[in-house]
Amino acid sequence: MKKNKGLLVVLSAPSGCGKDTILKSLLESTQTVKKSVSATTRAPREGEVNGVDYWFTPKEDFESAIGRGEFLEYATYCGEYYGTPRGPVGEWLEEGIDVVLKIEVQGGAQVKKLAPDCVTIFVLPPSLEELERRLRTRGTDSEEKIHERLQTAVKEMQCAGEYDYIVYNDTVEQAVRDILTVIAAEKLRFSRDPQVIERMLSHAETFCQ
Amino acid sequence: MKKNKGLLVVLSAPSGCGKDTILKSLLESTQTVKKSVSATTRAPREGEVNGVDYWFTPKEDFESAIGRGEFLEYATYCGEYYGTPRGPVGEWLEEGIDVVLKIEVQGGAQVKKLAPDCVTIFVLPPSLEELERRLRTRGTDSEEKIHERLQTAVKEMQCAGEYDYIVYNDTVEQAVRDILTVIAAEKLRFSRDPQVIERMLSHAETFCQ
Repeated sequence: MKKNKGLLVVLSAPSGCGKDTILKSLLESTQTVKKSVSATTRAPREGEVNGVDYWFTPKEDFESAIGRGEFLEYATYCGEYYGTPRGPVGEWLEEGIDVVLKIEVQGGAQVKKLAPDCVTIFVLPPSLEELERRLRTRGTDSEEKIHERLQTAVKEMQCAGEYDYIVYNDTVEQAVRDILTVIAAEKLRFSRDPQVIERMLSHAETFCQ
Repeated sequence: MKKNKGLLVVLSAPSGCGKDTILKSLLESTQTVKKSVSATTRAPREGEVNGVDYWFTPKEDFESAIGRGEFLEYATYCGEYYGTPRGPVGEWLEEGIDVVLKIEVQGGAQVKKLAPDCVTIFVLPPSLEELERRLRTRGTDSEEKIHERLQTAVKEMQCAGEYDYIVYNDTVEQAVRDILTVIAAEKLRFSRDPQVIERMLSHAETFCQ
Protein backbone atom coordinates (compact mmCIF):
# COMPACT_ATOMS: atom_id res chain seq x y z
CA MET A 1 0.00 0.00 0.00
CA LYS A 2 1.33 3.39 -0.83
CA LYS A 3 2.35 5.78 1.91
CA ASN A 4 -0.24 8.52 2.30
CA LYS A 5 0.77 12.15 2.35
CA GLY A 6 0.17 14.14 5.50
CA LEU A 7 -2.66 16.59 5.79
CA LEU A 8 -2.17 20.35 5.80
CA VAL A 9 -4.44 21.80 8.50
CA VAL A 10 -5.13 25.50 8.90
CA LEU A 11 -6.21 26.46 12.40
CA SER A 12 -7.63 29.92 13.02
CA ALA A 13 -9.52 31.47 15.88
CA PRO A 14 -10.76 34.91 16.86
CA SER A 15 -8.81 36.87 19.43
CA GLY A 16 -8.93 35.31 22.90
CA CYS A 17 -10.48 31.98 21.81
CA GLY A 18 -7.69 29.78 23.11
CA LYS A 19 -6.02 28.82 19.83
CA ASP A 20 -2.57 28.50 21.42
CA THR A 21 -3.77 26.34 24.32
CA ILE A 22 -5.65 24.04 21.94
CA LEU A 23 -2.66 23.74 19.63
CA LYS A 24 -0.28 22.98 22.50
CA SER A 25 -2.61 20.27 23.81
CA LEU A 26 -3.11 18.88 20.28
CA LEU A 27 0.65 18.51 19.73
CA GLU A 28 1.04 16.82 23.12
CA SER A 29 -1.71 14.31 22.38
CA THR A 30 -0.30 12.89 19.15
CA GLN A 31 3.01 12.09 17.48
CA THR A 32 1.78 12.42 13.90
CA VAL A 33 0.94 16.12 13.93
CA LYS A 34 3.55 18.87 13.77
CA LYS A 35 3.15 22.60 13.98
CA SER A 36 4.74 24.92 11.50
CA VAL A 37 6.36 27.73 13.46
CA SER A 38 5.37 31.09 12.04
CA ALA A 39 7.65 34.06 11.63
CA THR A 40 6.72 37.47 12.97
CA THR A 41 8.19 40.94 13.25
CA ARG A 42 6.44 41.64 16.55
CA ALA A 43 8.45 41.58 19.78
CA PRO A 44 8.42 38.37 21.84
CA ARG A 45 6.01 38.39 24.80
CA GLU A 46 7.10 37.16 28.20
CA GLY A 47 7.81 33.43 28.11
CA GLU A 48 7.83 33.15 24.33
CA VAL A 49 10.75 31.24 22.88
CA ASN A 50 12.31 31.87 19.48
CA GLY A 51 11.80 28.87 17.18
CA VAL A 52 9.07 27.44 19.42
CA ASP A 53 6.37 30.08 19.57
CA TYR A 54 7.57 32.12 16.61
CA TRP A 55 10.64 32.88 14.62
CA PHE A 56 11.14 36.47 15.78
CA THR A 57 12.44 38.23 12.72
CA PRO A 58 13.54 41.82 12.07
CA LYS A 59 11.33 43.68 9.63
CA GLU A 60 13.96 44.03 6.91
CA ASP A 61 14.78 40.29 7.04
CA PHE A 62 11.06 39.48 6.84
CA GLU A 63 10.65 41.73 3.83
CA SER A 64 13.59 40.22 1.94
CA ALA A 65 12.21 36.72 2.69
CA ILE A 66 8.91 37.86 1.13
CA GLY A 67 10.91 39.02 -1.90
CA ARG A 68 12.54 35.58 -2.22
CA GLY A 69 9.08 33.89 -2.06
CA GLU A 70 9.96 32.09 1.15
CA PHE A 71 6.49 32.35 2.71
CA LEU A 72 3.55 30.08 2.04
CA GLU A 73 1.38 32.99 3.17
CA TYR A 74 1.88 36.17 5.12
CA ALA A 75 -0.32 38.93 6.46
CA THR A 76 0.01 42.08 8.47
CA TYR A 77 -1.85 42.32 11.74
CA CYS A 78 -1.75 45.33 14.04
CA GLY A 79 1.12 46.75 11.99
CA GLU A 80 3.33 43.65 12.27
CA TYR A 81 4.12 40.92 9.75
CA TYR A 82 3.10 37.29 10.38
CA GLY A 83 4.02 34.56 7.91
CA THR A 84 4.37 30.81 7.36
CA PRO A 85 7.83 29.85 6.06
CA ARG A 86 7.60 27.24 3.30
CA GLY A 87 10.56 25.61 5.04
CA PRO A 88 9.88 22.06 6.17
CA VAL A 89 6.09 21.98 5.54
CA GLY A 90 6.37 20.25 2.15
CA GLU A 91 8.89 17.66 3.40
CA TRP A 92 6.78 16.81 6.45
CA LEU A 93 3.66 16.32 4.32
CA GLU A 94 5.60 13.99 1.98
CA GLU A 95 6.70 11.98 5.01
CA GLY A 96 3.03 11.50 6.00
CA ILE A 97 3.15 13.94 8.90
CA ASP A 98 0.14 16.21 9.35
CA VAL A 99 1.13 19.85 9.60
CA VAL A 100 -0.91 22.45 11.45
CA LEU A 101 -0.56 26.08 10.45
CA LYS A 102 -1.75 28.56 13.03
CA ILE A 103 -2.99 31.35 10.83
CA GLU A 104 -4.63 34.71 11.45
CA VAL A 105 -8.20 34.65 10.14
CA GLN A 106 -7.24 36.80 7.17
CA GLY A 107 -4.55 34.30 6.13
CA GLY A 108 -6.77 31.20 5.98
CA ALA A 109 -8.36 31.96 2.61
CA GLN A 110 -4.88 32.71 1.19
CA VAL A 111 -3.60 29.23 2.17
CA LYS A 112 -6.76 27.55 0.80
CA LYS A 113 -6.10 29.23 -2.55
CA LEU A 114 -2.44 28.11 -2.60
CA ALA A 115 -3.15 24.60 -1.28
CA PRO A 116 -6.76 23.69 -2.14
CA ASP A 117 -6.50 20.29 -0.45
CA CYS A 118 -5.71 21.78 2.94
CA VAL A 119 -8.35 21.49 5.65
CA THR A 120 -9.38 24.71 7.35
CA ILE A 121 -10.71 24.76 10.90
CA PHE A 122 -12.14 27.77 12.69
CA VAL A 123 -12.32 27.74 16.49
CA LEU A 124 -15.31 29.45 18.11
CA PRO A 125 -16.03 30.15 21.76
CA PRO A 126 -19.22 28.52 23.13
CA SER A 127 -20.80 32.00 23.10
CA LEU A 128 -19.81 35.67 23.12
CA GLU A 129 -20.83 35.89 26.78
CA GLU A 130 -18.53 33.01 27.66
CA LEU A 131 -15.67 34.59 25.70
CA GLU A 132 -16.17 37.82 27.67
CA ARG A 133 -16.26 35.88 30.94
CA ARG A 134 -13.02 34.09 30.06
CA LEU A 135 -11.23 37.31 29.14
CA ARG A 136 -12.30 38.85 32.47
CA THR A 137 -11.33 35.77 34.49
CA ARG A 138 -7.80 35.84 33.10
CA GLY A 139 -7.52 39.23 34.77
CA THR A 140 -4.55 40.24 32.61
CA ASP A 141 -6.32 42.83 30.49
CA SER A 142 -7.74 46.25 31.32
CA GLU A 143 -11.45 46.89 30.76
CA GLU A 144 -10.56 48.83 27.63
CA LYS A 145 -8.38 46.00 26.32
CA ILE A 146 -11.14 43.43 26.97
CA HIS A 147 -13.61 45.56 25.05
CA GLU A 148 -11.12 45.92 22.19
CA ARG A 149 -10.45 42.16 22.10
CA LEU A 150 -14.18 41.38 21.97
CA GLN A 151 -14.69 43.83 19.14
CA THR A 152 -11.81 42.24 17.23
CA ALA A 153 -13.21 38.74 17.91
CA VAL A 154 -16.65 39.73 16.58
CA LYS A 155 -15.06 41.07 13.39
CA GLU A 156 -12.91 37.97 12.99
CA MET A 157 -15.85 35.59 13.48
CA GLN A 158 -17.35 36.93 10.31
CA CYS A 159 -14.56 35.11 8.44
CA ALA A 160 -15.71 31.70 9.72
CA GLY A 161 -17.78 31.05 6.60
CA GLU A 162 -14.61 30.68 4.53
CA TYR A 163 -13.55 27.70 6.65
CA ASP A 164 -14.42 24.01 6.21
CA TYR A 165 -15.05 23.11 9.84
CA ILE A 166 -16.15 24.79 13.06
CA VAL A 167 -14.74 23.53 16.35
CA TYR A 168 -16.10 24.91 19.62
CA ASN A 169 -13.71 25.63 22.45
CA ASP A 170 -16.16 24.39 25.08
CA THR A 171 -13.29 22.60 26.75
CA VAL A 172 -9.76 22.26 25.40
CA GLU A 173 -10.05 18.43 25.52
CA GLN A 174 -13.22 18.43 23.41
CA ALA A 175 -11.75 20.89 20.91
CA VAL A 176 -8.62 18.71 20.51
CA ARG A 177 -10.77 15.59 20.09
CA ASP A 178 -12.82 17.36 17.42
CA ILE A 179 -9.72 18.46 15.52
CA LEU A 180 -8.33 14.89 15.59
CA THR A 181 -11.73 13.62 14.39
CA VAL A 182 -11.68 16.03 11.45
CA ILE A 183 -8.12 14.98 10.52
CA ALA A 184 -9.01 11.27 10.72
CA ALA A 185 -12.17 11.67 8.65
CA GLU A 186 -10.48 13.81 5.99
CA LYS A 187 -7.98 11.00 5.43
CA LEU A 188 -10.86 8.68 4.52
CA ARG A 189 -12.08 10.95 1.73
CA PHE A 190 -12.06 9.24 -1.64
CA SER A 191 -10.75 12.44 -3.24
CA ARG A 192 -7.54 12.24 -1.15
CA ASP A 193 -6.57 8.96 -2.81
CA PRO A 194 -8.49 8.69 -6.09
CA GLN A 195 -6.18 5.94 -7.39
CA VAL A 196 -7.27 3.53 -4.67
CA ILE A 197 -9.61 1.51 -6.92
CA GLU A 198 -7.14 1.39 -9.79
CA ARG A 199 -4.49 0.03 -7.41
CA MET A 200 -6.82 -2.51 -5.88
CA LEU A 201 -7.98 -3.75 -9.26
CA SER A 202 -4.52 -3.69 -10.89
CA HIS A 203 -4.41 -7.49 -10.94
CA ALA A 204 -8.13 -8.15 -11.01
CA GLU A 205 -7.81 -9.96 -14.36
CA THR A 206 -6.99 -13.13 -12.45
CA PHE A 207 -10.46 -12.93 -10.89
CA CYS A 208 -12.31 -12.01 -14.03
CA GLN A 209 -11.37 -14.59 -16.63
CA MET B 1 -28.52 26.51 20.78
CA LYS B 2 -30.67 25.06 18.06
CA LYS B 3 -31.15 21.32 17.78
CA ASN B 4 -29.15 19.94 14.90
CA LYS B 5 -30.71 17.70 12.31
CA GLY B 6 -29.47 14.15 12.01
CA LEU B 7 -27.18 13.06 9.24
CA LEU B 8 -28.29 10.88 6.34
CA VAL B 9 -25.57 8.29 5.73
CA VAL B 10 -25.44 6.04 2.69
CA LEU B 11 -23.47 2.85 3.24
CA SER B 12 -22.57 0.69 0.26
CA ALA B 13 -20.17 -2.17 -0.26
CA PRO B 14 -19.29 -4.62 -2.97
CA SER B 15 -20.61 -8.16 -2.72
CA GLY B 16 -19.11 -10.08 0.20
CA CYS B 17 -17.43 -7.08 1.87
CA GLY B 18 -19.21 -7.43 5.20
CA LYS B 19 -21.66 -4.53 4.96
CA ASP B 20 -24.30 -6.27 7.11
CA THR B 21 -21.85 -7.22 9.86
CA ILE B 22 -20.47 -3.68 9.97
CA LEU B 23 -23.95 -2.16 10.07
CA LYS B 24 -25.08 -4.50 12.85
CA SER B 25 -22.01 -3.64 14.93
CA LEU B 26 -22.45 0.09 14.20
CA LEU B 27 -26.06 0.06 15.46
CA GLU B 28 -25.03 -1.84 18.59
CA SER B 29 -22.26 0.64 19.37
CA THR B 30 -24.37 3.80 19.45
CA GLN B 31 -27.84 5.03 20.37
CA THR B 32 -27.91 7.96 17.98
CA VAL B 33 -27.79 6.06 14.71
CA LYS B 34 -30.75 4.18 13.25
CA LYS B 35 -30.97 2.04 10.18
CA SER B 36 -33.66 2.49 7.60
CA VAL B 37 -35.03 -0.96 6.76
CA SER B 38 -35.12 -1.47 3.01
CA ALA B 39 -37.90 -3.18 1.12
CA THR B 40 -37.19 -5.98 -1.34
CA THR B 41 -39.05 -8.40 -3.55
CA ARG B 42 -36.47 -11.15 -3.09
CA ALA B 43 -37.26 -14.10 -0.85
CA PRO B 44 -35.98 -14.00 2.75
CA ARG B 45 -32.78 -15.98 3.37
CA GLU B 46 -32.46 -18.26 6.35
CA GLY B 47 -32.52 -16.28 9.58
CA GLU B 48 -33.72 -13.04 7.99
CA VAL B 49 -36.58 -11.35 9.81
CA ASN B 50 -39.28 -9.24 8.15
CA GLY B 51 -39.05 -5.62 9.36
CA VAL B 52 -35.52 -6.14 10.72
CA ASP B 53 -33.42 -7.22 7.77
CA TYR B 54 -35.85 -6.14 5.06
CA TRP B 55 -39.50 -5.52 4.47
CA PHE B 56 -40.19 -8.52 2.26
CA THR B 57 -42.72 -7.25 -0.22
CA PRO B 58 -44.58 -8.91 -3.11
CA LYS B 59 -43.63 -7.54 -6.51
CA GLU B 60 -47.02 -5.97 -7.24
CA ASP B 61 -47.10 -4.19 -3.88
CA PHE B 62 -43.57 -2.91 -4.51
CA GLU B 63 -44.56 -1.61 -7.92
CA SER B 64 -47.63 0.21 -6.64
CA ALA B 65 -45.50 1.78 -3.87
CA ILE B 66 -43.14 3.03 -6.62
CA GLY B 67 -46.20 4.49 -8.37
CA ARG B 68 -47.21 6.34 -5.19
CA GLY B 69 -43.67 7.77 -4.84
CA GLU B 70 -43.12 6.00 -1.56
CA PHE B 71 -39.44 5.22 -2.13
CA LEU B 72 -36.53 7.56 -1.53
CA GLU B 73 -34.65 5.43 -4.08
CA TYR B 74 -35.03 2.00 -5.58
CA ALA B 75 -33.04 -0.21 -7.90
CA THR B 76 -33.23 -3.64 -9.42
CA TYR B 77 -30.47 -6.09 -8.65
CA CYS B 78 -30.33 -9.65 -9.95
CA GLY B 79 -33.90 -9.27 -11.18
CA GLU B 80 -35.33 -8.21 -7.80
CA TYR B 81 -36.40 -4.79 -6.52
CA TYR B 82 -34.63 -3.13 -3.58
CA GLY B 83 -35.84 0.23 -2.24
CA THR B 84 -35.68 2.67 0.67
CA PRO B 85 -39.14 3.62 1.96
CA ARG B 86 -39.38 7.36 2.70
CA GLY B 87 -41.30 6.31 5.80
CA PRO B 88 -39.67 7.47 9.03
CA VAL B 89 -36.34 8.72 7.55
CA GLY B 90 -37.40 12.38 7.43
CA GLU B 91 -38.85 12.34 10.96
CA TRP B 92 -35.76 10.71 12.44
CA LEU B 93 -33.49 13.28 10.80
CA GLU B 94 -35.63 16.12 12.19
CA GLU B 95 -35.31 14.57 15.65
CA GLY B 96 -31.51 14.69 15.33
CA ILE B 97 -31.11 10.95 14.78
CA ASP B 98 -28.56 9.87 12.18
CA VAL B 99 -30.03 7.48 9.65
CA VAL B 100 -28.00 4.90 7.77
CA LEU B 101 -29.28 3.65 4.44
CA LYS B 102 -27.78 0.39 3.28
CA ILE B 103 -27.84 0.86 -0.45
CA GLU B 104 -26.70 -1.21 -3.43
CA VAL B 105 -23.81 0.53 -5.17
CA GLN B 106 -26.06 1.59 -8.04
CA GLY B 107 -28.44 3.33 -5.62
CA GLY B 108 -25.88 5.58 -3.89
CA ALA B 109 -25.66 8.18 -6.64
CA GLN B 110 -29.46 8.32 -6.80
CA VAL B 111 -29.72 9.20 -3.09
CA LYS B 112 -26.94 11.79 -3.41
CA LYS B 113 -28.93 13.48 -6.17
CA LEU B 114 -32.15 13.48 -4.10
CA ALA B 115 -30.44 14.46 -0.84
CA PRO B 116 -27.21 16.32 -1.67
CA ASP B 117 -26.32 16.78 1.99
CA CYS B 118 -26.19 13.05 2.66
CA VAL B 119 -22.81 11.48 3.34
CA THR B 120 -21.87 8.51 1.21
CA ILE B 121 -19.48 5.83 2.45
CA PHE B 122 -18.10 2.95 0.39
CA VAL B 123 -16.70 -0.08 2.18
CA LEU B 124 -13.70 -1.80 0.59
CA PRO B 125 -11.95 -5.03 1.54
CA PRO B 126 -8.27 -4.65 2.52
CA SER B 127 -7.42 -6.24 -0.87
CA LEU B 128 -8.98 -8.48 -3.51
CA GLU B 129 -6.87 -11.39 -2.27
CA GLU B 130 -8.20 -10.92 1.26
CA LEU B 131 -11.79 -10.74 -0.04
CA GLU B 132 -11.23 -14.02 -1.90
CA ARG B 133 -9.72 -15.59 1.22
CA ARG B 134 -12.71 -14.49 3.32
CA LEU B 135 -15.25 -15.86 0.85
CA ARG B 136 -13.42 -19.21 0.86
CA THR B 137 -13.11 -19.31 4.65
CA ARG B 138 -16.86 -18.88 5.06
CA GLY B 139 -17.16 -22.15 3.21
CA THR B 140 -20.80 -21.50 2.31
CA ASP B 141 -20.33 -20.89 -1.40
CA SER B 142 -19.36 -23.19 -4.25
CA GLU B 143 -16.19 -22.43 -6.25
CA GLU B 144 -18.38 -21.11 -9.05
CA LYS B 145 -20.34 -18.88 -6.67
CA ILE B 146 -17.11 -17.49 -5.17
CA HIS B 147 -15.83 -16.66 -8.63
CA GLU B 148 -19.13 -14.97 -9.47
CA ARG B 149 -19.13 -12.94 -6.23
CA LEU B 150 -15.56 -11.75 -6.90
CA GLN B 151 -16.45 -10.69 -10.43
CA THR B 152 -19.48 -8.79 -9.09
CA ALA B 153 -17.34 -7.16 -6.38
CA VAL B 154 -14.76 -6.00 -8.95
CA LYS B 155 -17.51 -4.43 -11.06
CA GLU B 156 -19.09 -2.78 -8.03
CA MET B 157 -15.78 -1.34 -6.81
CA GLN B 158 -15.67 0.78 -9.91
CA CYS B 159 -18.56 2.80 -8.42
CA ALA B 160 -16.47 3.84 -5.40
CA GLY B 161 -15.44 7.12 -7.05
CA GLU B 162 -18.99 8.45 -6.71
CA TYR B 163 -18.76 8.16 -2.93
CA ASP B 164 -17.45 10.72 -0.42
CA TYR B 165 -15.52 8.38 1.87
CA ILE B 166 -13.74 5.03 1.69
CA VAL B 167 -13.74 2.80 4.76
CA TYR B 168 -11.67 -0.38 4.76
CA ASN B 169 -13.10 -3.50 6.32
CA ASP B 170 -9.75 -4.52 7.80
CA THR B 171 -11.54 -5.41 10.99
CA VAL B 172 -15.20 -4.75 11.77
CA GLU B 173 -14.22 -2.70 14.84
CA GLN B 174 -11.96 -0.39 12.80
CA ALA B 175 -14.59 0.02 10.08
CA VAL B 176 -17.23 0.97 12.66
CA ARG B 177 -14.82 3.43 14.30
CA ASP B 178 -14.09 5.00 10.92
CA ILE B 179 -17.79 5.38 10.11
CA LEU B 180 -18.43 7.04 13.49
CA THR B 181 -15.44 9.34 12.85
CA VAL B 182 -16.86 10.39 9.49
CA ILE B 183 -20.28 11.08 11.05
CA ALA B 184 -18.73 13.12 13.89
CA ALA B 185 -16.54 15.16 11.52
CA GLU B 186 -19.35 15.85 9.05
CA LYS B 187 -21.35 17.40 11.88
CA LEU B 188 -18.57 19.94 12.40
CA ARG B 189 -18.76 21.17 8.80
CA PHE B 190 -19.56 24.86 8.57
CA SER B 191 -21.86 24.16 5.63
CA ARG B 192 -24.12 21.99 7.85
CA ASP B 193 -24.98 25.00 10.03
CA PRO B 194 -24.21 28.15 8.04
CA GLN B 195 -26.29 30.34 10.41
CA VAL B 196 -23.95 29.65 13.33
CA ILE B 197 -22.16 33.00 13.13
CA GLU B 198 -25.33 34.99 12.65
CA ARG B 199 -26.80 33.34 15.76
CA MET B 200 -23.66 33.90 17.80
CA LEU B 201 -23.46 37.56 16.80
CA SER B 202 -27.20 38.25 17.11
CA HIS B 203 -26.63 40.39 20.20
CA ALA B 204 -23.06 41.45 19.47
CA GLU B 205 -24.10 45.14 19.44
CA THR B 206 -23.68 45.19 23.20
CA PHE B 207 -19.99 44.42 22.68
CA CYS B 208 -19.43 46.82 19.84
CA GLN B 209 -20.63 50.18 21.00
